[in-house]
Amino acid sequence: MDAIQLELDRRRPGVGGTTSPRREGDRVQPLSGVFEGLTTGHPIALVVFNEGQRPGDYEAFKDIFRPGHADFTHERKYGLRDHRGGGRASGRETLARVAAGTWAKQQLAPLGVAVKSFNREIAGIACKTLDWDFVTKNPLRVCDPQTFPAQLAAVEAAMVAGDSVGGVSELHITGLPVGLGDPVFSKLDAMLAYACMSIGGVKGVEFGAGFTSARMRGSSHNDPILPDGFYTNNAGGTLGGISNGDAVVMRLAVKPTSSIAKKQRTIDKLGTETEIEVRGRHDPCIAPRLLPVVEAMCALVIYDAWLSQQELAPETLSEMDAYDWEAIERVAGTQTITGE
Amino acid sequence: MDAIQLELDRRRPGVGGTTSPRREGDRVQPLSGVFEGLTTGHPIALVVFNEGQRPGDYEAFKDIFRPGHADFTHERKYGLRDHRGGGRASGRETLARVAAGTWAKQQLAPLGVAVKSFNREIAGIACKTLDWDFVTKNPLRVCDPQTFPAQLAAVEAAMVAGDSVGGVSELHITGLPVGLGDPVFSKLDAMLAYACMSIGGVKGVEFGAGFTSARMRGSSHNDPILPDGFYTNNAGGTLGGISNGDAVVMRLAVKPTSSIAKKQRTIDKLGTETEIEVRGRHDPCIAPRLLPVVEAMCALVIYDAWLSQQELAPETLSEMDAYDWEAIERVAGTQTITGE
Amino acid sequence: MDAIQLELDRRRPGVGGTTSPRREGDRVQPLSGVFEGLTTGHPIALVVFNEGQRPGDYEAFKDIFRPGHADFTHERKYGLRDHRGGGRASGRETLARVAAGTWAKQQLAPLGVAVKSFNREIAGIACKTLDWDFVTKNPLRVCDPQTFPAQLAAVEAAMVAGDSVGGVSELHITGLPVGLGDPVFSKLDAMLAYACMSIGGVKGVEFGAGFTSARMRGSSHNDPILPDGFYTNNAGGTLGGISNGDAVVMRLAVKPTSSIAKKQRTIDKLGTETEIEVRGRHDPCIAPRLLPVVEAMCALVIYDAWLSQQELAPETLSEMDAYDWEAIERVAGTQTITGE
Amino acid sequence: MDAIQLELDRRRPGVGGTTSPRREGDRVQPLSGVFEGLTTGHPIALVVFNEGQRPGDYEAFKDIFRPGHADFTHERKYGLRDHRGGGRASGRETLARVAAGTWAKQQLAPLGVAVKSFNREIAGIACKTLDWDFVTKNPLRVCDPQTFPAQLAAVEAAMVAGDSVGGVSELHITGLPVGLGDPVFSKLDAMLAYACMSIGGVKGVEFGAGFTSARMRGSSHNDPILPDGFYTNNAGGTLGGISNGDAVVMRLAVKPTSSIAKKQRTIDKLGTETEIEVRGRHDPCIAPRLLPVVEAMCALVIYDAWLSQQELAPETLSEMDAYDWEAIERVAGTQTITGE
Repeated sequence: MDAIQLELDRRRPGVGGTTSPRREGDRVQPLSGVFEGLTTGHPIALVVFNEGQRPGDYEAFKDIFRPGHADFTHERKYGLRDHRGGGRASGRETLARVAAGTWAKQQLAPLGVAVKSFNREIAGIACKTLDWDFVTKNPLRVCDPQTFPAQLAAVEAAMVAGDSVGGVSELHITGLPVGLGDPVFSKLDAMLAYACMSIGGVKGVEFGAGFTSARMRGSSHNDPILPDGFYTNNAGGTLGGISNGDAVVMRLAVKPTSSIAKKQRTIDKLGTETEIEVRGRHDPCIAPRLLPVVEAMCALVIYDAWLSQQELAPETLSEMDAYDWEAIERVAGTQTITGE
Repeated sequence: MDAIQLELDRRRPGVGGTTSPRREGDRVQPLSGVFEGLTTGHPIALVVFNEGQRPGDYEAFKDIFRPGHADFTHERKYGLRDHRGGGRASGRETLARVAAGTWAKQQLAPLGVAVKSFNREIAGIACKTLDWDFVTKNPLRVCDPQTFPAQLAAVEAAMVAGDSVGGVSELHITGLPVGLGDPVFSKLDAMLAYACMSIGGVKGVEFGAGFTSARMRGSSHNDPILPDGFYTNNAGGTLGGISNGDAVVMRLAVKPTSSIAKKQRTIDKLGTETEIEVRGRHDPCIAPRLLPVVEAMCALVIYDAWLSQQELAPETLSEMDAYDWEAIERVAGTQTITGE
Repeated sequence: MDAIQLELDRRRPGVGGTTSPRREGDRVQPLSGVFEGLTTGHPIALVVFNEGQRPGDYEAFKDIFRPGHADFTHERKYGLRDHRGGGRASGRETLARVAAGTWAKQQLAPLGVAVKSFNREIAGIACKTLDWDFVTKNPLRVCDPQTFPAQLAAVEAAMVAGDSVGGVSELHITGLPVGLGDPVFSKLDAMLAYACMSIGGVKGVEFGAGFTSARMRGSSHNDPILPDGFYTNNAGGTLGGISNGDAVVMRLAVKPTSSIAKKQRTIDKLGTETEIEVRGRHDPCIAPRLLPVVEAMCALVIYDAWLSQQELAPETLSEMDAYDWEAIERVAGTQTITGE
Repeated sequence: MDAIQLELDRRRPGVGGTTSPRREGDRVQPLSGVFEGLTTGHPIALVVFNEGQRPGDYEAFKDIFRPGHADFTHERKYGLRDHRGGGRASGRETLARVAAGTWAKQQLAPLGVAVKSFNREIAGIACKTLDWDFVTKNPLRVCDPQTFPAQLAAVEAAMVAGDSVGGVSELHITGLPVGLGDPVFSKLDAMLAYACMSIGGVKGVEFGAGFTSARMRGSSHNDPILPDGFYTNNAGGTLGGISNGDAVVMRLAVKPTSSIAKKQRTIDKLGTETEIEVRGRHDPCIAPRLLPVVEAMCALVIYDAWLSQQELAPETLSEMDAYDWEAIERVAGTQTITGE
């Protein structure tokens, strides 16, 4: 429970200075499946009660649709909508993902699998180096100390303007054996894409060279296979949907926060044109808070693939088990997002 | 069966001049579920026997791993591999997707839903206009008559060089009601992303403004809601994972064909370094052939979401049912891939 | 919530005189999915906190296996076990089934489908008539006022002896259209059998003439089809796993309560032979309390089959829609359990 | 493939003298998933083409409903029906079950798990002893050489009269570890019941003492736990839905063959009353042919449960691993079906 609480704290608003001043507490409690500190093998039910919620914050939006939000689609799909901000269209639901993913991470750690993430780009300003140590030392979770000041300034400028910015998050999964994932429908990358696209605010996903692949020739895109591992990692860690032993490298497009204080055009429930200003405690950029959610979802996918794979085929290529990880990381670290 | 055969023909190599000269025939036959021209309600089994296959083409790759292919991961995952080119790691498996998707398209057509695609970019050369009529009139299935000659020249240059190129495919789904898709795990865009990432050669997927979203401010990214519909379609047709009535707009990164005649570095089954030239009948660019597969997978996702949605909520917002589709199409048609 | 509470009260111990004096309260509360008295379309989470639990009741069984209980298998499967009586091996888990099933019943009622049950046999004494009115008027929920006194006496005699008895429960589902259920793997009767066999204490299930079928000839077992419906209902309401418009008639073997005060031979966790007396608040016969659980599980199966069936085929046999229900009920009512 | 063919031959009509003279051949061929005699890890598709089929046999039933068959429910559910006798409502579909189950049996054999069956009762005549050796030596697959002549005479008498008889089949699964099956919804016995109820002609299923349990007291039904295993096996091999190490003992009610030459009352598609005589090559008793199907379905369930169970809990009760199988088999062998 402590590990879960720690991860929940990472996704909380109000952490890191640039995120919103709301404090939710988010104390997780087990309802079932845990007995005297051990799992019983039965389903584990966890509950996080909403604390410090101020439903009044949302009363203004009861009959009006916030642009960029799911208000409109929920109202139309279900015929009614819980406007108090705690429903399924709320970022609050990511709590459950993080709690479950923490458990998956705990299973993966002793297997040597690490799931780590950072922000590659904030407000259109891309990091130029990948400094893992710096990631946990700055509130934006970016990976370049040189670009951080400009990125932070951009976030603060947006906040002052009652506006918001987006970012590009990047995930690395290292320590995977060759062979996870299925060849057609449960491809490892397809499952990861599904898992991450199910997170609110994510508008795109790419693996390895990603969209840059579309602008490369086969001769430069194909990763040469050497006796000590792949020479490059344009594939992003999978071949034919199956892990190839390299780091899985994935990038996500995170849109700017929908809730902004600036005046926007919208309509009310009767279809009448009106304007809205979404005031309240909202992050000017959700990319930092999204990282634990992304890691959680991907850890679940990876551990699920692991459990599906009863045993890898008998060793046929022992030489391939010693990869030149440095070469791989060098490639992963220097790949630019939009290529060229 | 005729409709299915027609779609299978669209994905066949050798169609359109720039694709490979291999001719597979691909005659589809029903094994069960169809009786006197009608479906019986029982599962439909279709079979397409491989014809004109020349296993000798693949004999050379029996003990060697083609870079960019799934040879390596399949060998390691399963401990053996059918090297004859017709297995699950082969593009041949997309036949089954197209066959099933055609049926889904047939169900969607009378509901007013259209699933259409084209190539937005080939070999790094992006189309500047969206001319739907032109799409079916050129072998690359691009949408701009002005850029087509340069795109074709790039493909041909790669072919002459024994190399290959990639592209960016775009899909539009129009005629959707508001309300398809689930709010958390079966988000419509997440399901579409999963379905398309499961197609071999796709390395990235984005919706609406996609990766460009990451560089926008909330005030310009949020689509204003007007009484006659959304003013822009940066969201790409969904809000909170649920269709919002706009066109779903999705873009896919298609990598350059892995099979190239150029010499590449690789290893054999014993881990010994060697070189390989993948000769044979291979397309220099698979993006044109991929389009019917992409349409098929998305049609299946959409029809599945349709069936999951027993009935939309009682009308609460009748004004919202009359969208300014022209405005939406105008937006969708002019959005650039890398934004701004 | 009121309807659910009502059903939960039906399965509570202490109701009806012959059941145990324990009082659990069982107040159900919604955690999510309900807003201002309406379902929101999101998953509904209900919780029933254990009240008045006396874990001390179970302390004696911490290191010892109760015969007829799942103590032994849980300990061995999971390596540990929550011995306090509220786990997944406890009858308490049926609360969740009844809550969900009540909702399914609410959906089925306006469709004209009724799911009703009673006890056909208690302690080896079979009812001779089916008097629906009497069912709710006696604590054993048996259907024959003539046999009730002997059945009650048998239960009381067992209780006095520190022992328990079993029974045969019967379920009727009326008002089903022809066509529910799938032809091979999701046969309606197979799903109902699965659902009921998943209830603790059920050791057998049969449909229509059931085990008696095995002793009949085809000429007497086949139900003749007449213009106004089937002449008999030996099939028990399905043909080829699909509802045929007749009442679904199912019978369940309910074993005697495992928890008895009588001394029994068993072992402890170390495998040492010992004896046990399971004292506490236990029903001498669980068949009466099982009925709402059986109804709940079957209502869920039926409503699920209903939702799976988008629309029945266009009317081809309008004559068949007017069944002679009285004839059917007469048959159903007079069928004996062991036939002949 | 040879093992599968062997099992398919066991379920073929015309084997054993009392079954019908039809000969179908039933040659199984792999379409995919097998390469040079080994499975590739990809889905295995097998096909058995109908040979020697005489659709004319079924032409007479095109517009008329055979009593006891699924003609009526299929026609109504789907609006049309393939009357030629090879559809999903035909016993032919069990071919696929047997093929898949043979593979499951092959996986279970080296694990020490055996799935064996026989007929306990034919035409109302019950076997009195369980002689495993005799089972494979008689066409009815009954287990008692003493009762066999009377059982055979009853089957032949029914055949001469243009009629049919039913039977009770019994299945034993031995060699299971303690711990297979889930505690609530995927109980091992519930899954087995589902699997067997999905076989056409099965009208009831019971475990261990089964319906007799309903007539026993807890003190005699509870299986005492001794240091060397359970003293009796009234539970039929599971406690709380989880295997307890004893033999799983299941009994199935098999109805008399629906297709009989005797004149029966029925209606045609227009609802007009008529009569029917179902002539053709039909078994007077399907219980013998059903056995390989039952074994196949149960092998699939068991192997699935095995795969779901990553590892059993660390040994807590080593004494319990050495059961007194003889005592268990003695109990299993002498249990009567209707108890007392």
